[in-house]
Amino acid sequence: MAVGDISIPQTIYPISGVKIGTTKAYVRYADRRDLVVFEIAKGATVAAVTTQNQFCAAPVQVLRKHIANTVPTHLLINTGNANAATGADGVERALATCDALANKAGVSIQNILPYSTGVIGEALPSNKIIAGLDSALADLSEDNWLDAAHGICTTDTIPKLASEKVSIDGVDYHITGISKGAGMIRPNMATMLGFVATDAKIDQDLLQSMLIKLTNASFNRITIDGDTSTNDCCTLIATGTAGEISESHPKFDEFYAALERVFVRLATLIVRDGEGATKFITVKVTGGKDTNECADVAYAVAHSPLVKTAFFASDPNWGRILAAVGYAGVELDQSRVNVALDEVSICERGGLATGYTEARGSEVMKRPEITVHIELGRGDATDTVYTCDLSYDYVKINADYRS
Amino acid sequence: MAVGDISIPQTIYPISGVKIGTTKAYVRYADRRDLVVFEIAKGATVAAVTTQNQFCAAPVQVLRKHIANTVPTHLLINTGNANAATGADGVERALATCDALANKAGVSIQNILPYSTGVIGEALPSNKIIAGLDSALADLSEDNWLDAAHGICTTDTIPKLASEKVSIDGVDYHITGISKGAGMIRPNMATMLGFVATDAKIDQDLLQSMLIKLTNASFNRITIDGDTSTNDCCTLIATGTAGEISESHPKFDEFYAALERVFVRLATLIVRDGEGATKFITVKVTGGKDTNECADVAYAVAHSPLVKTAFFASDPNWGRILAAVGYAGVELDQSRVNVALDEVSICERGGLATGYTEARGSEVMKRPEITVHIELGRGDATDTVYTCDLSYDYVKINADYRS
Repeated sequence: MAVGDISIPQTIYPISGVKIGTTKAYVRYADRRDLVVFEIAKGATVAAVTTQNQFCAAPVQVLRKHIANTVPTHLLINTGNANAATGADGVERALATCDALANKAGVSIQNILPYSTGVIGEALPSNKIIAGLDSALADLSEDNWLDAAHGICTTDTIPKLASEKVSIDGVDYHITGISKGAGMIRPNMATMLGFVATDAKIDQDLLQSMLIKLTNASFNRITIDGDTSTNDCCTLIATGTAGEISESHPKFDEFYAALERVFVRLATLIVRDGEGATKFITVKVTGGKDTNECADVAYAVAHSPLVKTAFFASDPNWGRILAAVGYAGVELDQSRVNVALDEVSICERGGLATGYTEARGSEVMKRPEITVHIELGRGDATDTVYTCDLSYDYVKINADYRS
Repeated sequence: MAVGDISIPQTIYPISGVKIGTTKAYVRYADRRDLVVFEIAKGATVAAVTTQNQFCAAPVQVLRKHIANTVPTHLLINTGNANAATGADGVERALATCDALANKAGVSIQNILPYSTGVIGEALPSNKIIAGLDSALADLSEDNWLDAAHGICTTDTIPKLASEKVSIDGVDYHITGISKGAGMIRPNMATMLGFVATDAKIDQDLLQSMLIKLTNASFNRITIDGDTSTNDCCTLIATGTAGEISESHPKFDEFYAALERVFVRLATLIVRDGEGATKFITVKVTGGKDTNECADVAYAVAHSPLVKTAFFASDPNWGRILAAVGYAGVELDQSRVNVALDEVSICERGGLATGYTEARGSEVMKRPEITVHIELGRGDATDTVYTCDLSYDYVKINADYRS
């Protein structure tokens, strides 16, 4: 059950220069379009960020090498099997799928970026993927973003899309993206998986630096269970068929803001669809000495199973929030710490807030979307992390998954 | 439902010089002996370690000041209310209870160490505690360890005791201790709460250094939910009525080993009684460059909700273990990593182990006690952490607690 506004955009803008094809490759399930191919036209720039998990999956290892050497022409994505913890054999299988697609498309193997998501520790059925390529290529179209959003899902219950149009000086720029993820979500550099494309023309170095900044404000600020995936990847494509956007462009900030809205929407949709989630929680920390310590405090609260079960129960057991703040590793003066749930102040100067009543606490905890505001009283830095509660269904989904 | 051997010792050795009294103070519940007083005879040494949570509770703040100045004569412990996140008022209430006990016992307020456990963020009903003191003092006896073990429980389902006798050169030394804790358990310096006493005579400085080393091998190596409590305290009393134990004693190691057995037993009893626990998991990491990185890897695995739910489900979804190893923050060469569940090798050189079958994995995952052995292939350091699985009941207990 996803939380709050999970609507797909009324208009999903195609991105000129990006075609998508999907097919059923039967990687794990009998009846799902589980294979997705992106075709990127010449002239595009492509940036990617990948997981910092040391057990990064075979496709991530291959992707890093390929994107270092060439501009990608195709993205090859399967769900149902993560091809992670599969050793040298996993890399060979990932390369075999890339090689097959390269041959069919008449490009070099290094032009192919592979992505996998699903169960860890099982051999990738690469033959099934190779067998599905012709059908996926025959399906290529600029209008298949929704199919692709479905195609990359695992335990997701909703497809995740965001799309924006910005008109700058008479030129229309379009941005469309998809993401997936519902468990093993505490991205570190990027989530598993996000794909965003725009028809703006953006220089490769700028595109990469924008992507890092964008993921740090979006995919790198969400957590469901604190488990950083082996397969996290976020890819940003700029096809360049509309006008050029550079940092010196007078409307750069306007364009960047639209891009950031798409990234934050795609990231928060993952939280709204978090495994077993019944509440969407924004943890906002202010008054830190620097952003890092604000993030440390926000993540401590967002990861605490006790805080998450209290949100699930709508129990204003807010002492659990303070306990998590206290073990975040930041040296605190308790008497300078304030905490509020939405507009309800619960803790002032480290103790119970004047005027706080259990009734007011209960009322706010029942809301499906709650902002926890923690003021540290140490400085001017702020940071925000998005998370969900921990419910019976999280345990159920993860105890049942695979079987 | 606690896991495995949770028996109380056949003989609970009284410790000469330590008397315990309990009573019903009605702090939170209608019919529980929720107030415990320890009386420590003159001549004892007492050491304590306390939580590193920055939101350490009022009694912890008071305890630190008191033990710095005097040798304690009394420990005053209540369950039902943690007196944490209660600001300056909480400290006043803790002091009021110490002051009342000091007056009744004819000692200085600084001779009293206060301890509280229970709900965070509510005002301590200090008047109820003060009203219960006469009854607790009238109950003082050397034989009340079991009552005390019951008296300090919160969501614990079993009392936790360990007791040992060691005979060294014709002298009998006794060690008896109790602990509590079932949720908010990832102690950092000590758990909430452990009390251990021995009749050995041990110098104050040695006692403190022994306590730090003992807690690091026991209470500081257990985790249930990763939540470090605001109230963690472990106290070690040496009454000195038996012979003296010093580092130069030829049988020091023998005595220390007995003490360590008591500490590890008290700590692992907490995990066996972990909220909702159905399995007792030992995470043993070998081949690290130093102990710290072994602990980081062990805790990443022990805290991963995905790993914990897989244990609950008896699902050999061991890729989740590797994913947690990968995000522990230790730089790894995947091809040097091996993982086994008990005697079953599941991962060799970062990929699937030769000869591993799902059937063997399923068989081992069904056991109530499992050792995960992770070899990092980086050096000679090792460390071990004890944890439990994550079940529906963990969510249920923590969604219902308080209400």
